[in-house]
Amino acid sequence: MITVLSGGTGTPKLIQGIKEIYPEEEINVIVNTVENNYFSGVYVAADIDTVLYTFSNLINDETWYGIKDDTFITNERLAEIGTPELLRIGDQDRATKIQKTLLLKEHTLSEAVDIQRKNLGIKAKIIPMSDEHSEIKIETEEYGDIEFHDFLIKYQGQPTVTKVKYSEVNPSPDIIKIIQDSDKVIIGPSNPITSILPIISLKGVSEELENKKVIAVSPFIGTSPVSGPAGKFMSASGYETSSIGVAKIYESFLDTLIIDSSDDKMIEEIEKIIPNVIAANTIMKTINDKKELAKLVLNSD
Amino acid sequence: MITVLSGGTGTPKLIQGIKEIYPEEEINVIVNTVENNYFSGVYVAADIDTVLYTFSNLINDETWYGIKDDTFITNERLAEIGTPELLRIGDQDRATKIQKTLLLKEHTLSEAVDIQRKNLGIKAKIIPMSDEHSEIKIETEEYGDIEFHDFLIKYQGQPTVTKVKYSEVNPSPDIIKIIQDSDKVIIGPSNPITSILPIISLKGVSEELENKKVIAVSPFIGTSPVSGPAGKFMSASGYETSSIGVAKIYESFLDTLIIDSSDDKMIEEIEKIIPNVIAANTIMKTINDKKELAKLVLNSD
Repeated sequence: MITVLSGGTGTPKLIQGIKEIYPEEEINVIVNTVENNYFSGVYVAADIDTVLYTFSNLINDETWYGIKDDTFITNERLAEIGTPELLRIGDQDRATKIQKTLLLKEHTLSEAVDIQRKNLGIKAKIIPMSDEHSEIKIETEEYGDIEFHDFLIKYQGQPTVTKVKYSEVNPSPDIIKIIQDSDKVIIGPSNPITSILPIISLKGVSEELENKKVIAVSPFIGTSPVSGPAGKFMSASGYETSSIGVAKIYESFLDTLIIDSSDDKMIEEIEKIIPNVIAANTIMKTINDKKELAKLVLNSD
Repeated sequence: MITVLSGGTGTPKLIQGIKEIYPEEEINVIVNTVENNYFSGVYVAADIDTVLYTFSNLINDETWYGIKDDTFITNERLAEIGTPELLRIGDQDRATKIQKTLLLKEHTLSEAVDIQRKNLGIKAKIIPMSDEHSEIKIETEEYGDIEFHDFLIKYQGQPTVTKVKYSEVNPSPDIIKIIQDSDKVIIGPSNPITSILPIISLKGVSEELENKKVIAVSPFIGTSPVSGPAGKFMSASGYETSSIGVAKIYESFLDTLIIDSSDDKMIEEIEKIIPNVIAANTIMKTINDKKELAKLVLNSD
C-alpha cells in the first residue's frame, strides 16, 4: 500500500502513471484542501476533483482542471447576465460540485469525497487532508493580502509575493493511520508551499513521515517550476526556487528526491541535504513518460 | 398603471398578451413566493423566473418553466452520478438561479429580482410578494404533510389533498403602495389557493383591493383547471372546483370575473356572488387569444 500527497496538477500526472502499474485499491491519495472555497454557490475542492477525474479518466488533461470535452453553458450565461465566474466551471463539472455541496449538508468532506469516488467507480482512496474549512492568503507587495484564486486568476499570478499564509486545521480522521499502514509515501511534483506543506504541517504528519520511506518528485526544472506559481511562493517563504529549495523543505523526513536530468549538476548540493537524489526525466509529456517516472518512484527507497 | 397578481403558468400567458398592448413600464407584477426554496444548492423562485422569462421572451412556453431551447447537461450529469434533481434545471436557467443565490447574500429578494429584471432589459416591475422565507405544505390523506414540489413532482399530484398550509409572511416593502398607485388590479388565471391566496392574505392587501377595480380571469373550464392541480387544492380548502369557487374566494374585493365561454350557464350563479361576470375565450392557445383576453381585461371595470 502506498500513500501519495497531492495538489492539483503535477501529482495527478504522476498518478496517471502510477495507476497503470500499481493496484488501484492499494493507492491512497491525501489531497490538499486549503484552496477549497465556495464559488458560484457551490463548494469547489479543485484539487480533490482533479484527483477524482484523474482516476476516473474524466480529467481535462490540457488544463488539469475539470472534465475533458465539457461545455460551459451556465458559465457563459452567467457572464452574459453580469455575474462572471471567477472559476470557469463546466456544466458536467458543476454537477460534481453541486453533488459535493449537497453531500456536505449531512457528511464531512472526507465522507462526501468517499461517496463521490465510489460513485465514479474509483478503487483508490481519496482523502481530503482536513474536514475543516481553511483559508489561504497570498500577501503581496502591491495589494496586501489577497485570496489564492484571486492571485492566480484575477491578478494572473503577477503581484510580488511577500508571504503565503494558511490557517492551521486538524487532519481528517484517517490520515495518520493511512500513512502508518503504507509501505511508502510519495510526494508528487506539486507546489511545495501551497499544496504539500499544508498537508505536512498537519498535526502528527511530519513525525509520521520520519518513520516512513518518503520519495518526492521535484516540480522544478532549473529555477522554474514545470507549471504554476511555485517559484514565487518558494522565494516568499525563504527557499531557493529550484530542486535544492524543494530538498530543504522536505529535509526532515525525505529519503529520496527525484530531480530532472537537466539538473544533474545539483546532485552534489542536494546530497548534502537528503540521503538520495536521482536524476530522471520528470516532465511527463506522454503516458509512457508518466509510467516510467511512476516505475522509478515505486521502485526507489 | 396596472398591477397583476401572478403565479407561474396561467398568468404569464395573460402577461404575454398584456405586454403587447399596454406600456411595459406601467406594468407591475406581484409574484407568489411561497413555493420558493433551495434546490441543488441554488435558490429557486420558479414563479418569479417564469415572469422574468416571460417579459424577456426567453420563456419555454411549452412547460412554462425555464428557458426555451435550454440544455440540461448539469441536470443529466447529476442523475448519472446519483444525485437526480427534483426540479429539472436547465443550464442557462441555472445561471439565473446562481445569480439570484449570490445576490441574496447582499440583497433582499425584492432587490435581487429588481437587479435581474434590469439586467434582462425588462421595464415592467417584478415584485416578489415577500422578502421572507415561507413554506407551503400539502396535507395529504396518504402521506401526511408533504412539500409542495414533492406533491407535484415526486407524487405527480396524485395524493388526496386534505389541506393546503403556508406560512404567514410580511409583504415586501413596495406592495401596498404599488396597489394604491394602480388604476386596476388584475388577477391572472393562476391557481387561486397556492398562487393567489398567499398574495391576497398578506397583511393589508385584501383591504387595499377593496378600494380598487379588481378583475380576475378564472383558471377553470367547467370543473377542471386549465392546467395544474388547482382543483384538488380548491376542494381541500372548501371551495367548489369551478369558476363559482373562484368567485367565492375573491368575493370580498372582486369587481369582475372573466370565465370561459363554455361556462356561460354559471353566469347567473356567479352574479349572486360578485358584481360582474364576462364569458369569453380564456384558453389562450395563440398570441392572438392572449391579446384578445388582455384587451378584455384591460377594458373591463
